[in-house]
This record gives sequence, structure tokens and C-alpha cells, in this order.
Amino acid sequence: MTGAEALLRTLLDADINICFSNPGTSEMHFVAALDNNENMRCVLGLFEGVVTGAADGYARMAGKPAATLLHLGPGLTNAMANIHNAKRGPSAMVNVVGDHASYHLQYDAPLTSDVPAIAATMSDWVKTSKSADKVATDGAEAIATAMSGSGKIATLILPADVSWNETEHGAAKVNHFPPPAAVNDTVIQQAANALTSGEPCMILMGGSISNERQILAANICAHSSARLACETFTSKIARGAGCPEVERIPYMTEFALDVLKDLKHVILVGTDAPVSFFAYPNLPSELLPETCSVHGLASLDQDMDDALKRLSQALKVDTTAPLIEHTAVTLPQGDLNSESIAQSIAAQLPEHTVIVDEGIVGGMGVFGATTTAAHHDWILQTGGAIGWGLPAAAGAAIAVPDRKVVCLEGDGSAMYTIQALWTMARENLDVTTIIFANRQYAILQIEYSRVGAEGMGKNAAAQMSLSNPDINYVELATSMGVSATKASNAEEFNQQFAHAMATPGPHLIEAEI
Amino acid sequence: MTGAEALLRTLLDADINICFSNPGTSEMHFVAALDNNENMRCVLGLFEGVVTGAADGYARMAGKPAATLLHLGPGLTNAMANIHNAKRGPSAMVNVVGDHASYHLQYDAPLTSDVPAIAATMSDWVKTSKSADKVATDGAEAIATAMSGSGKIATLILPADVSWNETEHGAAKVNHFPPPAAVNDTVIQQAANALTSGEPCMILMGGSISNERQILAANICAHSSARLACETFTSKIARGAGCPEVERIPYMTEFALDVLKDLKHVILVGTDAPVSFFAYPNLPSELLPETCSVHGLASLDQDMDDALKRLSQALKVDTTAPLIEHTAVTLPQGDLNSESIAQSIAAQLPEHTVIVDEGIVGGMGVFGATTTAAHHDWILQTGGAIGWGLPAAAGAAIAVPDRKVVCLEGDGSAMYTIQALWTMARENLDVTTIIFANRQYAILQIEYSRVGAEGMGKNAAAQMSLSNPDINYVELATSMGVSATKASNAEEFNQQFAHAMATPGPHLIEAEI
Repeated sequence: MTGAEALLRTLLDADINICFSNPGTSEMHFVAALDNNENMRCVLGLFEGVVTGAADGYARMAGKPAATLLHLGPGLTNAMANIHNAKRGPSAMVNVVGDHASYHLQYDAPLTSDVPAIAATMSDWVKTSKSADKVATDGAEAIATAMSGSGKIATLILPADVSWNETEHGAAKVNHFPPPAAVNDTVIQQAANALTSGEPCMILMGGSISNERQILAANICAHSSARLACETFTSKIARGAGCPEVERIPYMTEFALDVLKDLKHVILVGTDAPVSFFAYPNLPSELLPETCSVHGLASLDQDMDDALKRLSQALKVDTTAPLIEHTAVTLPQGDLNSESIAQSIAAQLPEHTVIVDEGIVGGMGVFGATTTAAHHDWILQTGGAIGWGLPAAAGAAIAVPDRKVVCLEGDGSAMYTIQALWTMARENLDVTTIIFANRQYAILQIEYSRVGAEGMGKNAAAQMSLSNPDINYVELATSMGVSATKASNAEEFNQQFAHAMATPGPHLIEAEI
Repeated sequence: MTGAEALLRTLLDADINICFSNPGTSEMHFVAALDNNENMRCVLGLFEGVVTGAADGYARMAGKPAATLLHLGPGLTNAMANIHNAKRGPSAMVNVVGDHASYHLQYDAPLTSDVPAIAATMSDWVKTSKSADKVATDGAEAIATAMSGSGKIATLILPADVSWNETEHGAAKVNHFPPPAAVNDTVIQQAANALTSGEPCMILMGGSISNERQILAANICAHSSARLACETFTSKIARGAGCPEVERIPYMTEFALDVLKDLKHVILVGTDAPVSFFAYPNLPSELLPETCSVHGLASLDQDMDDALKRLSQALKVDTTAPLIEHTAVTLPQGDLNSESIAQSIAAQLPEHTVIVDEGIVGGMGVFGATTTAAHHDWILQTGGAIGWGLPAAAGAAIAVPDRKVVCLEGDGSAMYTIQALWTMARENLDVTTIIFANRQYAILQIEYSRVGAEGMGKNAAAQMSLSNPDINYVELATSMGVSATKASNAEEFNQQFAHAMATPGPHLIEAEI
């Protein structure tokens, strides 16, 4: 078999059976291998940012990595903004990046670039496979790495000749890393001491936060009169009915400083001490007060649930934190704005929906409004690289085809990877995208004054406005095969959202706010 | 003034008065500086690949660099495929990439990445400015580098605090590099010897090839019975009436080997010895026969015109090569296909049009058909990273607003940076885009068999088909404010192309082939 075939069988044997792809000439033998193995589902993206954004969304919901197939250096660079988001999740991802045949690189043909150097800037693991005989074991190493801890970015560079050469070795077996290690007793005891100190204390969680973990942590907090919070942009969090109350650290540095200002202890589970998303003149980078002690209970690569259980035992926790009950919400009427959209979604959200949040300013209100909605999962853009939402929604829908996916998307951020709509249409994915069409980079309008920039003349306004011309998102979606409607008031939005929730397949609502 | 203001004034003083931009929070002070300086024209791209592709198209037609403004590592990675194309042009470009405030980097906030390492993979020059006092001189160094030789990629990283801090230094003066150096007499004599050897000889040109240079070289070839050719993907070439005949090296390795097989000498002007675009099993990487001597007459960073003039003098050239006369072409009738589209364009092409070629398979015929068309310039996708055509057309139109720009675009390649249509609409650019809508990655269908891959089952076909659903490019264009029509036969295309040539502003024709 070819090296490509050996690699592909290695992926399949490891239960990686989705390949998001945008191949080119140097990947044609891998495509031929895909063709021989129909149990590998191939999902084409029309731009590489769609490919890796979808792989990220998939991994967050499937709990295992997808493979991606990318074409040389430029294909990889196009993919990298969403690799960055995935790395910051963290998410698991196995990237297969084709390169020129090894003997061809020296000729510096037009598409030549330093693929390993590019890959290294945003991967946890990079390797160039040297021969068809070795590519399966290289692939197994990539898979093992990707699946270690809370997920890693593994990028395997596949020269065309490694792909097309024959090998007598078949698929390689993945030697998985040991499961996340238990933390030592000292950190359990330090956290217990903090929680029994009588001083203001918070447990702060990050990464992919299951409801079970939230309940473990909430019971500890209830027992200890501590606060329970999650980081601003956590990878995934279970929410709504059946979950305990969890604070979310505000995005705005000013507000974050305020909510954290009285703390004496923060216990970290799967996150680091919170810092400001950007630097601002006259605001600190570190959000915790100087007098606050930071206790790392368990990192993303350690056994977080075990640590919380042992902490609970150490504290002899017998308190049960209240769980949120589903609260009926009336449908909004009148003006369409961030608040009425949030209210409509909260009122109508089906149980087990996955909300993919890249709503930026327009979508900010939905998180709060859905606190008491039906039980759902929320996944967030973790790295700040916009253009993640639509692809991630596509990937999430592939991972959990029996659940509704609602994508909250800013009109500006939608445009970075708008090609994802076509993939939703081709794969008939059950994604409802809500475009918060405020016709501006509203976040920049806010940030402009926050950083102390002054004046808003022609040039500045032009950089932040999405008008002139207004984009018609309904036409844009239908041009790529996604049925779409526009809502200009709350009643229209209520009806359109209800229709989308009742009707499988891709929908887009342009919410004019 | 702020560091950003000092940098901006340095750019303006160096006559860089276009900034293609997609800013974020860390660039807000640069935006404020733009706002203070209305003689800097700011052109917003809704995706960073639009920004750098436009800067490349602009530089090729303006003969000087534009500035770009990009947001941190992910903004830069999104921009890099078209930086790669520009570097391979080569084109001149001054990238200003914002980064976190220097003191904020240590906190590893979500948007943190190694911006210098990313930039280094596809720039000729990278520097992180260390202070507001130094940023103007750093900018001047970037400008000088970008404008050296045939053009370079200079990437200046601008930490937010360098941007917002005050400085008493104003704009810095650019110390331009000396103009391209003359080649030495030895290489002139070696080329002269080759041309008088009586053996089969070719002058092969690359880079930006003016008509004057072509005539110089053509006269030498006419005098010496040598062949005159240009590389497959040259940055820019004057064509049509008034130009001499110039062969173009075929893209297909098999054909290139055939046309080059009898050569004993190749004289290179602004290019390297030709190599295969990709490696293929059983085909060589080097296109010249082993028995062919390669003579480097002048590189892209040397004075190519001077070298040709001196070679001409050495050979006592007194022959005048014939120049192409404009040949009237009848309008095609009946079926719409690559040939009839090429014929229609050749028949109706206005003088001084700029043709931006990313037509891939569907557009291949236009180059040949326009050989005897009205005089025009042709710019090509030089690095093989698709998603260049639409942005480059936008940039070219900004550089030469009094000329028509015709963009030949594959339906697959169009989708990588489709957001460029919005910029064309906003800036009301005189670009007519022709989408060769064959509903497939036709190049991959060809390459698949060329690399020896076999079988075309479900998975392979799905990776190469752009159907299911077909994209409606008319709706896609109008959704972003570009007027668009669909042509299904030659008569419709003739009429729509004539209308576009007669009517300023952006147009798109979806040519169903």
C-alpha cells in the first residue's frame, strides 16, 4: 500500500473517522487513500479556516480529534487562525499537511515554503514524515499527542513522495499517553486551607467544563461559602437547567477587576490566573488583586475531576448546591435588539442544543439570558481569532447530529470564514446561524475609546463600519445553499427562530439590530 | 505625537499613501493616526487575505508598495497566503502588524502568539519596534527594504504601547537602497558567447516584464536566432499589440520538457532555471535538459534592462523584431466554454486593460487568445496560493483607476477570498470579474491522474466537486454590492462583457461552462 494508505488506516484504527479537508496536488495520493476507505467521512471546506474551525468544533463536541488535510504552507497559514483558537481551547486536532516531494524542495518551486517552521508557531507537536515506511508510526505519534491531556494540536507534514511511495508496513497502533495524572496531596491541602480560611475565595474553572465537574465544584463552594466561576472564554460549558450557578469573568477589564477585587484566594481548575484580554493604558494586565493568593489545584493536563473529588473529601463536603430550574420566558415583542433576541432564544431553546458563540457585541446578552433556559452546551471562541463560529458550528453539528446547533455570529466575524455556509449546505447540517447585523465592528467602536484613542473622523469610521454597502446576509446564505430569512422586529425573529428549531437542516437568520 | 503617528507620517513622507487594513484592538492608535491624516487612503478588507492580496496587486501596478495593517498573529496568518504570492512575485509590501503591548506579552493572554516567528516564515525583513522613539526609523527601514531590488516583503511588528506612547521624534527619512546594480562584463560576455554559438538558445525572463525590456530582448533574439520566453507565472507582463512575441513556459511539466528539450543555452533575466511546479512520479523536477548550459544574465535585484542593453551592444544587434499587430477577432456564437470566453475577451478587450489571472483551468485559454488583442498588462498569481485574484484585482484598480481591470477567476479559487467583492463595491472599483464556473476544482481532477492516483469514488469526487450545492455567484456578488449577471451562452457573455467594459464600476459575470 502507499504511505498515504498506511497513514489513513492508522487514523481509522484509532477511531478518527472524520477528515475535514481542502487538498491540493501534493495531497492527491492521500485523497486516493480516502477514496479507498469510505468509512472515513470527508468534509470539504472551501477555505482552510473552515477546515480547522470545523475540526475544533467537532473535537469539542465529539471528545476526540478529527483529521484535517491541508495543502502546503499557504494552506496551513490559511488554517492557522482557527488552529490558534483550537490550541487555546484546548482542543485535539491531527493536521496532515502535504508538502512537496522531499527531493523537490531543493528546487524552490513557487509553492515552496518552510512548512515545519510555519507549523511550529501554532502546534504542540510537529513532525515531517521521512518515508512511507515510517508514516504510519509518525501518524500514531500525532494521534497519541493530540489525544493527550485536554487535547493538543499535532501537525504531521506529509511530503508527496512519502504519500505515494509503497510500504509493506500497514497501519500503526497508537500508544496512548497515560490518562491525566492525579495531582499531589499538597495542592489538595493548600486548596482546602484556602477554602477554610474564612477569607473570600473563588474556584475558577477553564477548559471543557462538564456539568458533573460544575456540581462537584459548586458543592465545595456551597460548603465553604466560596464563589464558583469560569474563565471568560472557556472551551465548553454545560449550562441551563440542571446546572449550578457559575459566574463568568467579564471580558471588560474594568468589570473583571471589580468583580475580583475582594478575593483573597483563587483556586484554579484547568485555567491560569486571569489576565486582561488586551492591554489598556492605565489598566493592569493581571486581574487579581496583589493580595490574592493563587492556588493551582489541577491543570488542563491533570485529572481535574479527581482533584475536586479529593478536595471535597478533604473538606468533608456535605452541602448540595442548588441546581438551576428551567424558567419559562415570555416571547419578546417590538424592537429587535440584543436583548430581545436573547430573550427569544432563551424562551425557545430546545433541550441539548449546542450554542456556538462568536456573537461578539451583538450576541453578548444571550449568555446571561439563557442561564435558566433548557439544559444546553455552550462552546466559545477561545483564542480571540475571529472567523471561528461558522466553521465550529459545522464541526459541532457533525459531531452531534441528533442535537440542534445554534451559532451566534457577529456580522463582521461572519465574513472571515463565510464559506462555512456552503459546507453546512452540502452536509445538510442542523445549524441555525443568527447574524447580529449591526453593520459595524462594534467591538472596535468600544475598544477605540477604551485604549484612549481620540477622534472618529472619516478614516477611523471607515475602518469600523460594515455599511456602504450593507451586506445582504440572506442573499449571501442562499447563494451557498443555506435557507435564510431576515428579521427586523422581535415577532419576526420569534417566528423564524421557532421555524428553524422545528426544521432540521441549515438556516440563517439575519437579525437586523 | 504618538508612535503610531510618527510611523504613519514616515509612510506618507515616503509617498506610501494607501493602507489596506483589517485592524483590531491593538491597532486602534494606528487607526487614530490614520484618522488624523486623511491623505492616507484607508481601504478596509473584511478578511486579511484581501488586505495583502490587494497590496500585492496595487504594488505590481503602482510600482511602489502599499502599507497593510494587520491584527496580531491570527491576522497575520490569515494574510500570509497572499504575502507568499507577493514574495514570489516579487512585490513590494510594508506590513504593519500590531501586537500586544510589550509588557503584556508575558501574561500569555488568549490572542498571544509568536508574531515575529510567524512573520519570519514569509517575510524578507522582520523587526519588532521597541519604542515610540524608534518606530519611525524602524518604519523607514521597512520602507527602504520593501522598495529595494524588484520589491521585498517588510513586516514591522508594532506593539500596542509603542503605538500609543508619545515621542518627540517625528517622521523619519527613508534612506533608500542604491538602485539595482549593473552586472559585470563577464556575464554579458558569457551570454553573448552563448548567443553566437550557433546552438539552440533561449532568453528566459521573469518578474515584472515591461514592453521595453521585451523589445530589447526580442531584438537580441531576432539578431541571434534565439527564442524569447517568459516563466510560467511571471509577476507582470505587457502584452498584445505593440509587443514582441514571447513564448510562455507551459505549466504542465510534460509540455514544458518538450518545448525545452532541444535547448543548449538558456540566458536568465529575472528568473531562475525553470523547475516543475509540483513533483510527479516519473517526471524530473528540473525542466531543462542536462546538456543545457544556464547563464544567469541578471537577477531580479540587478539592473536587467542595462544588462540587456549591454548584451545588445556586445552583439552589435541591428535587427528589429516584429511587433504584434492588433488583430480583429469576431465575436463567438453558441456554446459558452473556455474557448468562446477567451475569444470574446480578445475581441472586446479595451486598450490598457489590466488582466488579473487566477482563471486556473477554465481561464487557461485567455492568455493565448489575447496575444494579438489591444495592448494590455497581464498580472499572474505567482506563488500558487489560490485566493489571490479578487483581492489583487481590487488593489490593481486602486493603483490605476483610469484603466479597466478584468479578473479571470476560477470558481474554486474565488471562494478563498470572496470577501474582496465587498471591497470592490465599497471603493467602487472598476473591476470586471469573470467566474469560470465549471463547478469543480478542475485542476485537481487533472492533477489526480498526473500524480498516478487511481480511482474516483465517492470520497475523491467529493473533494474535487463544487456542486451539491452549486454556488450562485450572481447572488453572492449582489449580496456584497457588486452588480452581477450570469452567462450561459456566448451571445450572453458577449453582451455582458461589452456592458461591463462600457460601464465603470464593479461587475461580475458568472460564466457557466
